[in-house]
Amino acid sequence: MESIKRTKIAEVLKRTDFGTLVNVKGWVRTRRGNKQVGFIALNDGSTINNVQIVVDLTKFDEAALKDVTTGACLSVNGVLTASQGSGQAIEIQATAIEVLGACDNSYPLQKKGSSMEFLRSIAHLRPRTNTFGAVFRIRHNMAMAIHTYFHQKGFYYFHTPIITASDCEGAGQMFQVTTMNLYDLKKDEKGSIIYDSDFFGKQASLTVSGQLEGELAATALGQIYTFGPTFRAENSNTPRHLAEFWMIEPEVAFADLDELTALEEDFIKYCVRWALDNCRDDLEFLNKMIDNGLIARLESVVDTEFVRLPYTEGIKILEQAIAGGRKFEFPVYWGCDLASEHERYLVEEHFKKPVIMIDYPKEIKAFYMKQNADGKTVQGTDVLFPQIGEIIGGSVREENYDKLMARIEELHIPMKDMWWYLDTRRYGTCPHAGFGLGFERLLLFVTGMSNIRDVIPFPRTPRNAEF
Amino acid sequence: MESIKRTKIAEVLKRTDFGTLVNVKGWVRTRRGNKQVGFIALNDGSTINNVQIVVDLTKFDEAALKDVTTGACLSVNGVLTASQGSGQAIEIQATAIEVLGACDNSYPLQKKGSSMEFLRSIAHLRPRTNTFGAVFRIRHNMAMAIHTYFHQKGFYYFHTPIITASDCEGAGQMFQVTTMNLYDLKKDEKGSIIYDSDFFGKQASLTVSGQLEGELAATALGQIYTFGPTFRAENSNTPRHLAEFWMIEPEVAFADLDELTALEEDFIKYCVRWALDNCRDDLEFLNKMIDNGLIARLESVVDTEFVRLPYTEGIKILEQAIAGGRKFEFPVYWGCDLASEHERYLVEEHFKKPVIMIDYPKEIKAFYMKQNADGKTVQGTDVLFPQIGEIIGGSVREENYDKLMARIEELHIPMKDMWWYLDTRRYGTCPHAGFGLGFERLLLFVTGMSNIRDVIPFPRTPRNAEF
Repeated sequence: MESIKRTKIAEVLKRTDFGTLVNVKGWVRTRRGNKQVGFIALNDGSTINNVQIVVDLTKFDEAALKDVTTGACLSVNGVLTASQGSGQAIEIQATAIEVLGACDNSYPLQKKGSSMEFLRSIAHLRPRTNTFGAVFRIRHNMAMAIHTYFHQKGFYYFHTPIITASDCEGAGQMFQVTTMNLYDLKKDEKGSIIYDSDFFGKQASLTVSGQLEGELAATALGQIYTFGPTFRAENSNTPRHLAEFWMIEPEVAFADLDELTALEEDFIKYCVRWALDNCRDDLEFLNKMIDNGLIARLESVVDTEFVRLPYTEGIKILEQAIAGGRKFEFPVYWGCDLASEHERYLVEEHFKKPVIMIDYPKEIKAFYMKQNADGKTVQGTDVLFPQIGEIIGGSVREENYDKLMARIEELHIPMKDMWWYLDTRRYGTCPHAGFGLGFERLLLFVTGMSNIRDVIPFPRTPRNAEF
Repeated sequence: MESIKRTKIAEVLKRTDFGTLVNVKGWVRTRRGNKQVGFIALNDGSTINNVQIVVDLTKFDEAALKDVTTGACLSVNGVLTASQGSGQAIEIQATAIEVLGACDNSYPLQKKGSSMEFLRSIAHLRPRTNTFGAVFRIRHNMAMAIHTYFHQKGFYYFHTPIITASDCEGAGQMFQVTTMNLYDLKKDEKGSIIYDSDFFGKQASLTVSGQLEGELAATALGQIYTFGPTFRAENSNTPRHLAEFWMIEPEVAFADLDELTALEEDFIKYCVRWALDNCRDDLEFLNKMIDNGLIARLESVVDTEFVRLPYTEGIKILEQAIAGGRKFEFPVYWGCDLASEHERYLVEEHFKKPVIMIDYPKEIKAFYMKQNADGKTVQGTDVLFPQIGEIIGGSVREENYDKLMARIEELHIPMKDMWWYLDTRRYGTCPHAGFGLGFERLLLFVTGMSNIRDVIPFPRTPRNAEF
């Protein structure tokens, strides 16, 4: 077979220089036809669209084509031709076909319409399907949008540690990391495990957040963001939880509450706009096959100004709704942690646009949030989105050493391994703020997929670490 | 103090609209002066350069300035002025100064010239130094270069899993991940730990490479790259080893050896050129303070065509050198794993340019590398750089199922948990190739730093997981 430089299918589909001999390589999605002519739909992952290979069967040896089956990998030379059929502008009239890799009929992706559950069990092959090809191309694009956004704004990408020996959020939901021989654990006379022989010389675990280290960086480099894996050993088998997920956590020196909410809104709009501008084919496929409201929902977010809603006002609106006859499963009162139904009422029914809720009761938020003068609320922010609820959680941080320590003592937070965090408030402390975005939450919103296990290549969940 | 919108110092230093009232915020690097006038060097992390704040002491209350000490955080209003002194084009004549955060004299960064060892012990504060500010800004830029390069080439960023229950490189150097109560391990009648109660229902560990999962993705999406943390539980206390480091692993369907080496060369040149184009101030600082040959070395890499050197020819060159009287510590013979001294001889003395060595003896390379027709060598590649040695390791992958299995059996590699990897060779296999780049190795080269613990924010090494 003549050697011709390969053209990616995404590129070949845009060409109009009909009559040119081209080479494409990819995997057979379908093969159909009759005795005179065969049609092969070939895909190479560069786009959701297949290129149609037309095979004049009078010119090809049947034996040479017997391995051209669903899933087989081909190299095809052929003439770029204006397509006769509808649905595509070009096709390739094959002049030579080489089977690079055959695919027998035990191939699990032979039939269409496999369930999402089944596809999860073959997560090593599901990127070859239309849906997961689209999802993972969008996943790439959202990561690129995030890096580009922060780079253009002068933020620095900062790698916070994955393995940590100091964490204040409680060890119950953390994965322990060890190199000790579990068959020969050394213990002291009280029966306590001696961690001296462990790799780090002390007990270590996987990070649940890079925020605290991110604050160290922001108070030196000015503006930083993290983008890395994060772990929760929660035994939650739900469509919204992963044991291993990716988080983005920007942190900004000198930012106040208004600047924080402006950043949150601008950032998320930028990402959604990037998807609309750069992932059109994949979004249209998902809009057709997965969620008919997807593109309209994405467009509505980009075009709308988000509401700023103090928690106290939010409670009033919910109480008025209840007074007006609206029923909720969970009670509403000042100080309650809003349930998903409350958030969705505010976003989808009352305001009909994304809401950034601010100034939460300090009791339901983390110790590090900046305390308001009222003594009751803190400068926390949750960005609430239609369909998925909270997509971003952030806050202005309490930069005053005494106020922070008072809160830490009030809550009995063990800080003995956290002296370094407190140093930021001891030495040249500065106002700062930041937020966290669960990358897979963003992807649920942007792809319309309904299970978080379907927006990450290899989901880790209770009893599942395959591949 | 009048509220004026903050300007970043990187931007203020470029402005020429003298006479304008501006606000800057940042940390005091130094304060000096006499009774009439004070000079404050202020830095906000946006650039290595400080802005000089000039304080007319006849106009300021002394008490208001007593907290303006090294490390303090300030907000300064002042008039943008053409600088009288040399070394900077602009300065700010202060009209008002607010101390946002004081800094007492226990601040560990008060004195200049701290050792690298000492700075590692205060890794939470070292980003506030010139050297580490420069290093971490360059670190950000190299990450951005990598994402931009691959995005422009049509690669997709693919997140391979961090926690894995299947790995073929041997558990000895891996970190175990568990949620089991180590005080109450369940064992069966033979005394084996029952992992059924562990989070994943089986033994799990931290990934040592995303390559195998990357191959799954490349044989579906065409071209992918990973960029994520990777772990080795090696008890190596050297300036070249980390227990937690970041790796970049691109994988390309349909690529052969020539395309692989072309990608390796083009990629690394792109990154180095990005540093020269975008990190000039930081590089000049490092060139002056850390390594006088840095910028010249970076420029030479960008301007040079890399040598392609088959291993067998490399051995001949080394043998000729030995015959000519060159002494090496380690022996040279066909089949030996080249030592650092051999690689450096080839790169720094013989060719005086980067070398991509190819076609290694199969015995010294991994099982998955594509076997050459000679039956002795495989299509592995190492990119060898001046000063640091191997910076990239890659290979064409063996895509033939039978050849791959033969090698796996020859080497007794346990593949029972790796059925999914072999499926890529069973279903529509295709030629493909990829490489791995240790991100911190790249940073050693680009920054001129000599210890790998100084190019990652919070290094994890034996007995060290602080911060």
